[in-house]
Amino acid sequence: MRAAEMSVPPDEFETIARLFRPLTGGAPEAFGLMDDAAAIPSRPGHDLIVTKDALVAGVHFLEGDPPGLIARKLLRTNLSDLAAKAAEPFAYFLAVSWPESADWAYREAFAAGLAEDQATYGVKLLGGDTTSTRGPLTASVTLLGWTPSGRMVPRGGARPGDIVLVSGTIGDGGLGLEAARGSLGLPASDVEWLAARYRLPEPRLTLRQALRDHASAAADVSDGLIADAGHIGDASGAGIEIDLDRLPLSAPAAAWLARQPDPAAARLHLATAGDDYEVVCTARPEAADGLMAGANTPLTVIGRVVEGQGTKVFSGGLAVPVVSSGWRHR
Amino acid sequence: MRAAEMSVPPDEFETIARLFRPLTGGAPEAFGLMDDAAAIPSRPGHDLIVTKDALVAGVHFLEGDPPGLIARKLLRTNLSDLAAKAAEPFAYFLAVSWPESADWAYREAFAAGLAEDQATYGVKLLGGDTTSTRGPLTASVTLLGWTPSGRMVPRGGARPGDIVLVSGTIGDGGLGLEAARGSLGLPASDVEWLAARYRLPEPRLTLRQALRDHASAAADVSDGLIADAGHIGDASGAGIEIDLDRLPLSAPAAAWLARQPDPAAARLHLATAGDDYEVVCTARPEAADGLMAGANTPLTVIGRVVEGQGTKVFSGGLAVPVVSSGWRHR
Repeated sequence: MRAAEMSVPPDEFETIARLFRPLTGGAPEAFGLMDDAAAIPSRPGHDLIVTKDALVAGVHFLEGDPPGLIARKLLRTNLSDLAAKAAEPFAYFLAVSWPESADWAYREAFAAGLAEDQATYGVKLLGGDTTSTRGPLTASVTLLGWTPSGRMVPRGGARPGDIVLVSGTIGDGGLGLEAARGSLGLPASDVEWLAARYRLPEPRLTLRQALRDHASAAADVSDGLIADAGHIGDASGAGIEIDLDRLPLSAPAAAWLARQPDPAAARLHLATAGDDYEVVCTARPEAADGLMAGANTPLTVIGRVVEGQGTKVFSGGLAVPVVSSGWRHR
Repeated sequence: MRAAEMSVPPDEFETIARLFRPLTGGAPEAFGLMDDAAAIPSRPGHDLIVTKDALVAGVHFLEGDPPGLIARKLLRTNLSDLAAKAAEPFAYFLAVSWPESADWAYREAFAAGLAEDQATYGVKLLGGDTTSTRGPLTASVTLLGWTPSGRMVPRGGARPGDIVLVSGTIGDGGLGLEAARGSLGLPASDVEWLAARYRLPEPRLTLRQALRDHASAAADVSDGLIADAGHIGDASGAGIEIDLDRLPLSAPAAAWLARQPDPAAARLHLATAGDDYEVVCTARPEAADGLMAGANTPLTVIGRVVEGQGTKVFSGGLAVPVVSSGWRHR
């Protein structure tokens, strides 16, 4: 059947056969997506690292976003989890519930986005499910990666005395969402750059070896820096202190900050906005040099791990009250 | 925070901490659901079998179905895939998108359903994601199981000359959906029994050893017997012939059949209705005795594998035209 002849909405068997089967790259584990399951041989000396994140239109991306970008963001948010665990990406499973508006061209663009990022990140599709929905587009990816046995970098490994570091720059994701919505009063080039950071995060997979060799704990920054650093503290049974004045900022975020009347509140906004998909990690102070030298992405020291519990935030040497540490998932 | 004090809709962190964390059973792989990922040690000599199925309210179950039953059906449809692959269930990942109406009590009942079936089937929760949606309840499970290396029973192993068998009884799922909708003119006890078969399928995990030792191919019956037998034929590069007169029927399905004006058409209806979650499999004729003796569930010979391609259906020795072989996923 040619695409142009297909009824709308398209048939799920056709969607799988024509759009998703090529994404297996002929991987024997996938049986051409013609079986009930995939079979993954054990890899001696390795742990399989598994993460599963879902995206819903109107919650995690804008309804009108191009389908290729949505698909790439879906893969990348999951790849970001693997990056924080110092895992090597391997393969993924996909469940998509298509709304009625997702015609063949929409699905083709979605699959093309997956194909593009598969090539970039070296993963392949092994299975999944497609269904219809009368609601918004909903999709989940279960992403698999490998680490040497017992070498996943956990959230729970931070100890008092460790330093806290973060990769790249913070706040671009949150500002990017505002930029994409048109509510940010910045020059067009800044708006465009920030919106792209929101729509297409860059998972920090190049940190892998440095994290594995030198970090005591790590998490990806999806909910917001303060929240995700707090997750490390909670999982480790320790407290976290963050110095907002050390926040690494992009030039557009710095330009935005310069226009805000209350700098401390504005920095807190950037540190709680989420969607950065950077990596926040901890390390013994003596490991810091090795960690920063081995990372192919800039890492900035932003705080420390302390006895106790909870996350404290400072600016100008004063405590800044945190009402909401990050995006509350609902 | 006490449940009664919680805002509606409930917070996802609370949902994970209070309802889903207990479902890990303290499994070390899950890190108490406090990490970005789970870590699964390799199991030498084994393959990890992975299946992922999604359910959407209004498509795969009735909107008003009790949340505990929905959760159990979600697990069971995935367990049925593992059953057909002769895999031993191990653990699962869950993504749920809650509609606004899913308050705390609804989520508690959903988690209680998972807990009940986890205990029955010996699986545990290792991770996943929860989000909100303005659409219908949407949930996917990624289920993991084990087989000895290279011993997954595939769809693609059938050869001309093999016999085709099916477990249990066929047609109850489809009649059960009609029963649940109140459109079936049968005695109340039959209606209740059939509706329960639709709402709560029983994955045929007890077939494991017999399938592994004696079957050449297998699939679970979710789309409809004719469609799923056809999937085996397609994956195997062979044709399938099914004798509708050999269809194993439950007493309520037989009672329904006795009231139908066109018995062959009615049998075809049962064989294409889907939602049975039985196992259809193939075997060399000389393996049939061993297969049936080793199965703890009745198996019935319903057809054979032939040269060529496509699925042919017979009743009273005559070919029955098949317009739709099963439920077309949309």
